[in-house]
Amino acid sequence: MENVNIKDLAQALGLSTSTVSRAFRGNSDISPKTKERILALAKEMNYQPNHYASNLREQKSKTIAVIVPELANNFFAQAINGIEKIARKNGYHVLIYRTGDDFEKEVSFINDLHNGRVEGIIMSASGESQNHSYLKALETKKIKLVFFDRVYDDIQAPKVITNDYQSSFLATKHLIDAGCKRPAYLVINRKLSIGKMRMQGYLDAIKESSLPFDEKLIINCSNEAKENYKILKDVFLTLKPDAVFASVERLALSSYYVCQDLGINIPEDIKVIGFSSLEIAPLLNPSLSTITQPAFDMGTKAASLLFESLHAPKTNFDNEVFILESKLIERKSTS
Amino acid sequence: MENVNIKDLAQALGLSTSTVSRAFRGNSDISPKTKERILALAKEMNYQPNHYASNLREQKSKTIAVIVPELANNFFAQAINGIEKIARKNGYHVLIYRTGDDFEKEVSFINDLHNGRVEGIIMSASGESQNHSYLKALETKKIKLVFFDRVYDDIQAPKVITNDYQSSFLATKHLIDAGCKRPAYLVINRKLSIGKMRMQGYLDAIKESSLPFDEKLIINCSNEAKENYKILKDVFLTLKPDAVFASVERLALSSYYVCQDLGINIPEDIKVIGFSSLEIAPLLNPSLSTITQPAFDMGTKAASLLFESLHAPKTNFDNEVFILESKLIERKSTS
Repeated sequence: MENVNIKDLAQALGLSTSTVSRAFRGNSDISPKTKERILALAKEMNYQPNHYASNLREQKSKTIAVIVPELANNFFAQAINGIEKIARKNGYHVLIYRTGDDFEKEVSFINDLHNGRVEGIIMSASGESQNHSYLKALETKKIKLVFFDRVYDDIQAPKVITNDYQSSFLATKHLIDAGCKRPAYLVINRKLSIGKMRMQGYLDAIKESSLPFDEKLIINCSNEAKENYKILKDVFLTLKPDAVFASVERLALSSYYVCQDLGINIPEDIKVIGFSSLEIAPLLNPSLSTITQPAFDMGTKAASLLFESLHAPKTNFDNEVFILESKLIERKSTS
Repeated sequence: MENVNIKDLAQALGLSTSTVSRAFRGNSDISPKTKERILALAKEMNYQPNHYASNLREQKSKTIAVIVPELANNFFAQAINGIEKIARKNGYHVLIYRTGDDFEKEVSFINDLHNGRVEGIIMSASGESQNHSYLKALETKKIKLVFFDRVYDDIQAPKVITNDYQSSFLATKHLIDAGCKRPAYLVINRKLSIGKMRMQGYLDAIKESSLPFDEKLIINCSNEAKENYKILKDVFLTLKPDAVFASVERLALSSYYVCQDLGINIPEDIKVIGFSSLEIAPLLNPSLSTITQPAFDMGTKAASLLFESLHAPKTNFDNEVFILESKLIERKSTS
């Protein structure tokens, strides 16, 4: 039987559509016997209530959105796994959006999500130092927002981050303790709060040591692997740093490719450490020292906060910042 | 102003709600001037049409679902990037579902998706040799289905796969040509069609050579990294294969960990090759020889097929299988 609708089913049962509808909404104002009769025939006729329509009636989409800069990235992939775990537990669907680090896309996604498609949004931001007024409208639409990892300081919403400053400070100190005199700092976007925090940790560790500070050793990189390869090749040949501290994973990997091609030995000629969630860091040649963020836990924390606010709208974590600790894992690349 | 609805807006304009509604549906039966007036005030009052409701009216969700066994996996992450690219081009949202290779979850997702949430589904399957009758209902609901990578042979739907048999045959031949006498084949689920095809390639390459066939060298592995480590440690110590051919990426990586811990040298003591979409395979110690599937292209192909069927429902690719070619990339692990 094709596309049985609620009218067909009601007619076949000799009941009103509203009675039939009640059986699917779990209302207790119809008898168990009637309910059973309705559900049995529904099964037989292959009828299923229109989720879309019934969610509309309840004003709930039972869906949350996750907006991230990237998908093919170990940190975000693991964080999404954490978010999904909590969402499933709560019976929610997860819509995943990838901005490709394009702020315009983020704005367009958010504007699109105003319209009842989701009840809440978990976001890692793509456009700091931009105008964030498009986010204000979420509040009037009663759509909850939680930030993780990359946040906007000017927006009131719960934030789940890691101890970026401290981790950076310790990683730089680790390089200095290993005898490095000219550690370079590789950064993509120093305007992002996360970029600022990480850079400050590097700067303060240099300051605290007896090393002279050389601004040229702060290297601006890009989102493009090819471009980074060119930039780093030039840096390694001309500035000759004796260590690199990569503020994001892919810059550590680009450094490896450049060293491989130039015959620069890690860790003898140059030491490498980076923020990274790469599970196979121990298998690299040489194994990569990392600052590893608790990606999965950050995902579960962000999702738990979102569902707490959805279930108890009066709880308000909007001014709270939750800091989870990253781990410094020393491997051969800094030995 | 809070939660402006269409009635508020219509009242403020002195128009009927149906006229206002038409302005948002792009109907041409209202004057451009009226339309402009409506949209201008809507903007001012921060009114946005309820997407959910208007999609319901049009019977379109403008959403597709992607169901995959895993997310934190290079092949699927890249394939999803390909799918997303095409979906965005068509103005569609992508809902991503992860089964964790659990067939029950796949069934529950599909049953849930019957209800109008999506117009089409792109799936890499988790439960071959199971009963697939839950998929039949999609047809009566007019929800399009496209398979990629892992498919069900008994279900009529377009399928995008790679030349698994041929790639496996060539990879095994590559090991034999390199002098290996006892290459082991590592498999997770030999019931999946993809597992069968890959294993047949291995078997036929052994047969064609002068090597004796040893069934013990076909090693059943699991989805758990810890368990695989134990299985492979035992295999490497007792069966002493001189090569391993990993039918999925993570089994090659587990082999690396075991070799590292046992002091077995790759490629001197044992050669390793595997199906893998790992972008940093060249950075491993040693660099890993791979059979690399065109993951991104498979994603774009699957999505293109889906949108072709959605836009022109009379086109029918249900009996077609599209085969994209994988590449054998030789690196140090088999030299």
